Amino acid sequence: MTTTSVLSRQRCFDGWQEVREHRSAVLDCTMRFGVYLPPQASERPCPVLYWLSGLTCTEQNFITKAGAQRYAAEHGVILVAPDTSPRGAAVPDDPAYDLGQGAGFYVNATQAPWSSHYCMFDYIVDELPQVVESSVSSSGRRGIFGHSMGGHGALVIALRRPDRYASVSAFSPIVAPSEVPWGQKALTAYLGADRVAWRAWDACEQVRLATARLPLRVDQGDADEFLQTQLQPERLEAACRAAGYPLDLRRHAGYDHSYYFIASFIGEHIAWHAAAMS
Amino acid sequence: MTTTSVLSRQRCFDGWQEVREHRSAVLDCTMRFGVYLPPQASERPCPVLYWLSGLTCTEQNFITKAGAQRYAAEHGVILVAPDTSPRGAAVPDDPAYDLGQGAGFYVNATQAPWSSHYCMFDYIVDELPQVVESSVSSSGRRGIFGHSMGGHGALVIALRRPDRYASVSAFSPIVAPSEVPWGQKALTAYLGADRVAWRAWDACEQVRLATARLPLRVDQGDADEFLQTQLQPERLEAACRAAGYPLDLRRHAGYDHSYYFIASFIGEHIAWHAAAMS
Repeated sequence: MTTTSVLSRQRCFDGWQEVREHRSAVLDCTMRFGVYLPPQASERPCPVLYWLSGLTCTEQNFITKAGAQRYAAEHGVILVAPDTSPRGAAVPDDPAYDLGQGAGFYVNATQAPWSSHYCMFDYIVDELPQVVESSVSSSGRRGIFGHSMGGHGALVIALRRPDRYASVSAFSPIVAPSEVPWGQKALTAYLGADRVAWRAWDACEQVRLATARLPLRVDQGDADEFLQTQLQPERLEAACRAAGYPLDLRRHAGYDHSYYFIASFIGEHIAWHAAAMS
Repeated sequence: MTTTSVLSRQRCFDGWQEVREHRSAVLDCTMRFGVYLPPQASERPCPVLYWLSGLTCTEQNFITKAGAQRYAAEHGVILVAPDTSPRGAAVPDDPAYDLGQGAGFYVNATQAPWSSHYCMFDYIVDELPQVVESSVSSSGRRGIFGHSMGGHGALVIALRRPDRYASVSAFSPIVAPSEVPWGQKALTAYLGADRVAWRAWDACEQVRLATARLPLRVDQGDADEFLQTQLQPERLEAACRAAGYPLDLRRHAGYDHSYYFIASFIGEHIAWHAAAMS
């Protein structure tokens, strides 16, 4: 039996922005997540939309910077924003910003010392929805989206488990971690040097294997400072074209990698997920 | 001749969120401010709406947390968010969060050591508009609003200089600094113990002296943790009633003192100012 405590509960757009904490069995540590309950959630079951954040983020970044609550309240969507890795003094870490705590990459690690705690895929797909959806009025419909490393996470999770989600979208995602520095570093550490093991965690690879088709949308700023080195959305475009997987890829002139970009289009994403989850 | 440098410029809702830095002659230090240029600003003159932040804030809090850009883009309003005090190693400070840097209270200090730099009233009323409005396409119409200490600042500034503003509003403002601990501490330090000198910086006192009438709106959450000790909006209500100054005071059930409250109603405030500034 998991117990969840409410650390904070603040009125926002006539709903409630909460931060909750629970003991995760999967990650073997205490985890926090944000949950926004729109006003409709006190009256009827609502779909639940999961946001996966990028490198260095906690549950706070999205809930304070994205301006998402307004749209969740408009569409009657419950928004859940987990942390980006297991946390705590007992959890392995690395001094770099792109490995260890704050950089879980949403994989199930197989290599020491990471494999003891770093099972973010199982946490996001199974444990967190159990914890959240047993305590809110969920319609049973679910969507997933994220940013950068979290866009990678959302894509891989939805492509591997399309039975669990009605829709998937991403802002500025890492689409081919096997081919870019951030991904290669993380996958080597968490999974080992054998690239065969990386395929399960690479959206471009998973598109080729996908049998189901979910609504899939990606937004990318063309002034993103990581566009050429880490993101390379043209790889996803090519993989989707080759696989016949419909992709709605939208490029936006002048936008960078920041929450100012996310805030500008989060309303469109939430409306789009709300329609798919209805 | 003031030179202003652009520290950052990020696309947001089809406009630009900038942070600029300049040398302030009035404050005798280097100051930063945020300016949001809506898409309309590249085509025609726009009104300029000044936001004054609360204790401990810099120019960052409002531009990252309020979700205001969306509404500024909708209504064609330029948003300016200054810092809350003079800054820098040469500027007097105090270890407390509610005095010195981050806590300028929008007054012109008369007491040592503060009087050398702490002239935030003159900065906000005169120097900052000169700096901003000479570099953007301003319609010449101006509004002012703020939060908590910044709500106090907006009220006092607009009441004392109604010639400069078309409208004034506040979230959770300190309305009677002479009567509450935050205000008494700051006014004693910046102005001395003689309460006569405080009247010029107390919105409830200034309402009694006001000859002009500006559109005036205040929003207050009833779960605000500072409501009874520091804010006491009923004092402003009574002062406005006695003076015949129209006040639109709106109380909101369940809302606290945070940016979640501000975000929930910032759209209404910007639409309201936009109408008054048109």
